[in-house]
Amino acid sequence: ASAGVIAAAEARDAQLTKPPGALGRLEELAIWYAGWRGTARPTIEAPQIVIFAGNHGVAARGVSAFPPEVTVQMVANFEAGGAAINQLARAFGASMAVVALDLERPTADFTDAPAMTEAEVLAALQAGWSAVAEDADVFIAGEMGIGNTTSAAALAAALLGGTGADWAGRGTGLDTAGVALKAGVVDAGLAHHADHLADPIEALRRLGGRELAAMTGAILAARMARVPVILDGFIACSAAAVLARAAPGALDHAIAGHLSAEGAHARLLAALDKVPLLDLGLRLGEGSGAATALAVLKAAVACHSGMATFAEAGVSDG
Amino acid sequence: ASAGVIAAAEARDAQLTKPPGALGRLEELAIWYAGWRGTARPTIEAPQIVIFAGNHGVAARGVSAFPPEVTVQMVANFEAGGAAINQLARAFGASMAVVALDLERPTADFTDAPAMTEAEVLAALQAGWSAVAEDADVFIAGEMGIGNTTSAAALAAALLGGTGADWAGRGTGLDTAGVALKAGVVDAGLAHHADHLADPIEALRRLGGRELAAMTGAILAARMARVPVILDGFIACSAAAVLARAAPGALDHAIAGHLSAEGAHARLLAALDKVPLLDLGLRLGEGSGAATALAVLKAAVACHSGMATFAEAGVSDG
Repeated sequence: ASAGVIAAAEARDAQLTKPPGALGRLEELAIWYAGWRGTARPTIEAPQIVIFAGNHGVAARGVSAFPPEVTVQMVANFEAGGAAINQLARAFGASMAVVALDLERPTADFTDAPAMTEAEVLAALQAGWSAVAEDADVFIAGEMGIGNTTSAAALAAALLGGTGADWAGRGTGLDTAGVALKAGVVDAGLAHHADHLADPIEALRRLGGRELAAMTGAILAARMARVPVILDGFIACSAAAVLARAAPGALDHAIAGHLSAEGAHARLLAALDKVPLLDLGLRLGEGSGAATALAVLKAAVACHSGMATFAEAGVSDG
Repeated sequence: ASAGVIAAAEARDAQLTKPPGALGRLEELAIWYAGWRGTARPTIEAPQIVIFAGNHGVAARGVSAFPPEVTVQMVANFEAGGAAINQLARAFGASMAVVALDLERPTADFTDAPAMTEAEVLAALQAGWSAVAEDADVFIAGEMGIGNTTSAAALAAALLGGTGADWAGRGTGLDTAGVALKAGVVDAGLAHHADHLADPIEALRRLGGRELAAMTGAILAARMARVPVILDGFIACSAAAVLARAAPGALDHAIAGHLSAEGAHARLLAALDKVPLLDLGLRLGEGSGAATALAVLKAAVACHSGMATFAEAGVSDG
């Protein structure tokens, strides 16, 4: 982000018709957004939401409350406009697209093999990279993939330390026994790949999934294009953590949209040093929390760029 | 709210293409909204924001960081579209109007007289009552009035107990000495009117202001018309507390939009038994926190009423 633009945005903020700081976090958001967009008075015209969908070999271990065929069924629901994310995209003026990644070919079960080959993880990273629109001014990566909180938990543990019990949560609705089983599956994956997890991309290949890798690629592409990102929940943040581990500051262009009800999301956000904008008990995925947070970013930018200054409005500035 | 409609909305919620409860608080919000609107599949078409402006005799006591003429200047700014609330209303599709209440005639200084005569408080209540549009489907009352956090603090203390120190905060930007002075002004008002504060409307007349009374009237009118209300910050909640004290359940049609950075707002929300939707450090007033929360309510209703059911989408429901 450009220091000159940030200083200009801060100067504008100080002149707007409000007591200093009275818009709280909205002021910080607008200045951050201005810095990444390279203009002190930015607008949001083309927010983009892309849902990446993948299937997981590890789903065969019984780690989800839903059967694997739900992934392809939900892709059809996204395409037909019937999912939660479709309604949120429409409500807040974002484009929405779904990228289905080889759904007929699930990843390998990571408890006894790498989830993806090198060619597969590269293809998935590339699919994410290519999905970011040239003219996007905010990017949200969402996901769908039965079994993917298990994959995300294993990846988070590999990147950030801890065991299955630290990172496995209820996902779409596991009971306590289901969570314990899931934690055991994560631990089995961590044990199987123990000697190969130091490199973040290799951890992604071995424990992640195609939609996780695509999210990693998309968030990186957004960084290169200076497109601000709103991170969604546990799975999106696990994919983002790959970049954070690969290069310090790699997520400076990203904010945390919300705190998910998925148990370990708070721990993951703390590791990424991100404070979530919303805390509404969401645990749906699909980018739904980030899409709701898009409204908050829109509020921030609308105020920052649309308000009159004290001089323009003829208001005494205290 | 109708029990039959609520049950129908809950039944719809249970069939939507998401794991049960995965939209967290958005689900509760949509069901609450459906109940007040009297339909299991409601929409938000006509959200209404009205800013009530008043001037306060107590401002002469030096309780604000801004001079009293800012009230009328900001009314002009609202009318010209330059304030924060104008940008938020535009961003989220709400109508916005400002009602200036006898600005040239401030209320009396409540430290030595009732702030309003009986005729004045009735006129202000009536102005608020009349401001709620017949076709509004969400209502937000905002305010502007230099000195009005002092009035709101005194009113909150009268309604809910405690002293000036419990309820006085930084307002538009007082320093510690300023807050202490303000707390003393509140205590002086409480002492002067001590024998006349048991009736909530009488407390409003003696310690409130025209814009506070108008908010009270508007929130009551919305209740009668079954229009859901999003409460803004400290001042709006103090005005709403008059109704809560007058009749149990009088605020069942209202949700707390946000937790303000004004010190005593958390205490006030707790007394009203309301959990705020947002916590973004706002302390501007104008209805700005509630208007930002409108986006969250829109998200909730859009998902609830727009999503496909499992049967419609052909998705396995676990």
